[in-house]
Amino acid sequence: MTTPAAIDFYFDFSSPYGYFAAEQIDALAARHGRPVRWQPILLGVVFKTVGTAPLPSIPVKGPYSLHDIGRTARYLGVPYRHPGRFPLPTQQAGRAFTWLAERAPALARDFARATYRAYFTADRDISDLGVVLDVAAGLGVDADELSAALADAALKARFKAAVEAALARGVFGSPFVIVDGEPFWGSDRLPQVDRWLAEGGF
Amino acid sequence: MTTPAAIDFYFDFSSPYGYFAAEQIDALAARHGRPVRWQPILLGVVFKTVGTAPLPSIPVKGPYSLHDIGRTARYLGVPYRHPGRFPLPTQQAGRAFTWLAERAPALARDFARATYRAYFTADRDISDLGVVLDVAAGLGVDADELSAALADAALKARFKAAVEAALARGVFGSPFVIVDGEPFWGSDRLPQVDRWLAEGGF
Repeated sequence: MTTPAAIDFYFDFSSPYGYFAAEQIDALAARHGRPVRWQPILLGVVFKTVGTAPLPSIPVKGPYSLHDIGRTARYLGVPYRHPGRFPLPTQQAGRAFTWLAERAPALARDFARATYRAYFTADRDISDLGVVLDVAAGLGVDADELSAALADAALKARFKAAVEAALARGVFGSPFVIVDGEPFWGSDRLPQVDRWLAEGGF
Repeated sequence: MTTPAAIDFYFDFSSPYGYFAAEQIDALAARHGRPVRWQPILLGVVFKTVGTAPLPSIPVKGPYSLHDIGRTARYLGVPYRHPGRFPLPTQQAGRAFTWLAERAPALARDFARATYRAYFTADRDISDLGVVLDVAAGLGVDADELSAALADAALKARFKAAVEAALARGVFGSPFVIVDGEPFWGSDRLPQVDRWLAEGGF
């Protein structure tokens, strides 16, 4: 029996819609017997490539988007509190995820979900190294070991390479899901992902 | 017994997602006993205000969007054939709608749906006056009378004013639905519109 192919889930830790997808993607994929490969990206790098900008900075559309985020959270039944600092840099969280994923992928996913909840339900500043270490420590990770790893230039390079590989695959937003080569952008496309997995395309 | 308040449906005739919403909005609103007020807008005017650009012109996101449009049409079960010329100017269609709506709102809605189908299923150039007149004639409209009306500067001014009024209400994309003051952007928000109408908010 062959292992079913993983689906790819790309997200930025500063993306509310990425958080909404993170709360749903594993259960969705599991209904179709598929594992999920989680990969954080950096929207700042994406925006430079695609020429777009962070939502809050766009006139008219920006304020609407903040409203839509809160409403979509209620629609999905996902707890949400808009952070005081938004968006923010997510390199530290991305590198910590990378280091954890190299050791224990399931733990890395738990870290990703816990980091999202720290940011989007408890307004913790996840750009801060201390907060990242604290979230990881809450999952049983040795904070000193992780802290030393995060200072390692080689880890930074591995995360950077992973972000560049995502962009090379055409990833340009968060969340972004790829199922057997088929790209889906946005948490509002998860119903399409669900049908795609059920029917093998449509 | 008071008449239930209409919901507002804004769309550009060159917008595929506007077409998808046009195929669904009346039935959706009718399930909740609500009439729909249709109002064409001009995305070109919106883009100048918001500083965004037509989808196809955006790197990476543009090609994805064309792919997403075709897939979303299949997902919704709406017939779709991507037009050879896309996007295109929709002033003539917008003015014709305005003139028809002043006389017979139901006929204007039929004209809007027929114009969308001419463009997005039969690849007809709806920026062309002759095509607009032909679509209207197919619904029993006197083409000579409509043609004379479309040359009238006062009609142009009335449509322009309606587009500006939409922008002043915060409309910045197509489709855009406003339910009792609550704004929804995108055909993928129709499930939220549905619940909003059912529950009076959430």
